[in-house]
Amino acid sequence: MDEFELIRRYFVRDSDVRDVCVGIGDDGAVLRPDPDRDLVTVVDTLVENVHFAADMSPFDIGYRAVAVNLSDIAAMGARPRWMTLALTLREARADWLEDFAAGLDSAAAAHGVTLVGGDTTRGECIVVSVQITGDVAAGRAILRSGARVGDTIFVTGTVGDSAAGRELLAAGREQEFLTRRFLHPIARVEFGRKLGGAATAAIDVSDGLYTDLEKLLTASGVGGVIDLGCLPISAALRSTFDREAQRRLALSGGDDYELCFTADAANLPDSGELMVTAIGKVRSGADLECREAGKTVDYTDSGYRHFQ
Amino acid sequence: MDEFELIRRYFVRDSDVRDVCVGIGDDGAVLRPDPDRDLVTVVDTLVENVHFAADMSPFDIGYRAVAVNLSDIAAMGARPRWMTLALTLREARADWLEDFAAGLDSAAAAHGVTLVGGDTTRGECIVVSVQITGDVAAGRAILRSGARVGDTIFVTGTVGDSAAGRELLAAGREQEFLTRRFLHPIARVEFGRKLGGAATAAIDVSDGLYTDLEKLLTASGVGGVIDLGCLPISAALRSTFDREAQRRLALSGGDDYELCFTADAANLPDSGELMVTAIGKVRSGADLECREAGKTVDYTDSGYRHFQ
Repeated sequence: MDEFELIRRYFVRDSDVRDVCVGIGDDGAVLRPDPDRDLVTVVDTLVENVHFAADMSPFDIGYRAVAVNLSDIAAMGARPRWMTLALTLREARADWLEDFAAGLDSAAAAHGVTLVGGDTTRGECIVVSVQITGDVAAGRAILRSGARVGDTIFVTGTVGDSAAGRELLAAGREQEFLTRRFLHPIARVEFGRKLGGAATAAIDVSDGLYTDLEKLLTASGVGGVIDLGCLPISAALRSTFDREAQRRLALSGGDDYELCFTADAANLPDSGELMVTAIGKVRSGADLECREAGKTVDYTDSGYRHFQ
Repeated sequence: MDEFELIRRYFVRDSDVRDVCVGIGDDGAVLRPDPDRDLVTVVDTLVENVHFAADMSPFDIGYRAVAVNLSDIAAMGARPRWMTLALTLREARADWLEDFAAGLDSAAAAHGVTLVGGDTTRGECIVVSVQITGDVAAGRAILRSGARVGDTIFVTGTVGDSAAGRELLAAGREQEFLTRRFLHPIARVEFGRKLGGAATAAIDVSDGLYTDLEKLLTASGVGGVIDLGCLPISAALRSTFDREAQRRLALSGGDDYELCFTADAANLPDSGELMVTAIGKVRSGADLECREAGKTVDYTDSGYRHFQ
């Protein structure tokens, strides 16, 4: 099977999506944007043995490659629309590709995202780059840089579950909820769109709550304080890890794909069934302080970074 | 140096480009499209030891990663605007990154393309994915599928030089013109934009003239005939390779990044200093025939494909 047949077989979907004039199969895709909207474009790469273990299922790799990008789109308050895939593989195995494409579809279809193009190449390791382009009312994208002194700091859902699920899997153990939170993260796309006009700043929690919140505060030129007693910890995490590990996982575990944002607490949109927790306040300064029961707690950022 | 510092140091440029509301540094880029234009988006991946030799200079890798995408944009008749980079590296070496970024800039700046985002990851091989998004007047993108019986088949520049340069380098030899054609291909962006409304179909010559023209004809549901005596062969190629090798390189060498297009011969735009050569005609049927001095020549497609 050569690359052209491969693309046709697994990635081309019949589609009469209104905003896709030309999809896969030409030199490029031709897309028709809506008037009076800005484009929001995000790209994230997953590398074998770095972002996923060599034994992760191709479905889960495909799902994750889309979900992590949807999470960035959510953090911008945008609506995801179009996706491209740059896929590097050692070999083209039909069963692998079929499962991978199913995972990709599963995450994308839930948000009406259309695969419009890509490039499939051979290489010595598996590298999956997905780029998603979405849109938002002109001038209404939520940036990292808008947090104001006095804003409340919020986070959606619970934090630490995904890293806990990953640690358990690496140790040959499983806990259903935590494993699912790691393997099938859910990007907060709907709530992100509701945050436009309400949140002053937002970031998605991918590297770890502490380090991601620090990035938001730095971009906004402000400081902050969070109350560790307020961190939203799931019942599954509480029952599986001790208190110290819960805290470490919640603050720097990463891969949560929840939204951390700042807003006037009186100005929160309805989050439906999604839990939204106030964890601290924006203040002047340049540091992020952790407190517990009114006392400062020493915390060292250990969020994930490449090339350290 | 961690990935955040790496991105800041080598890829962030001061920019007050009107159509980039938010560039590198947030969860996503925010771009402002012009009204009444379609978007054209292309993505191409270069993999070490597949698309470039491990000893290719980082400048040349960066340059090529952009040029091959610009060539796809040119083949759509579009104007390139925004670029993202997904870069996977074994290690972050300052000298490598500086040269790579310079090559990237060199190719992008020539066409006013702004780097607006990306992702930098560690991995076991070098993988460079560049995505360029451009625009074109609504409904005016040039597709592969519009060739009509009776159209003339054209190609820009000369073909075979790049593959010749690559073969010479692999053999430890060099010929200035051919080496440059391989290392620094020039995408035909300006002429591509002029082809809108004139060309009925276009493709860029990346896999080899014969196989790329076949793809165009297949997409258009037509056949064609080309005269091998009309192929534009450079003086450098003529003087370095024998006649049989010239033909092989011109038809299936690939990496030319010239434009192959179909048009009414009476309807050609001014190409300035760029040579444009009529090499054949579109006819009904489903095959691409090669002729020389009026006789059919047997030619077997050997254009480059992955995963064969």
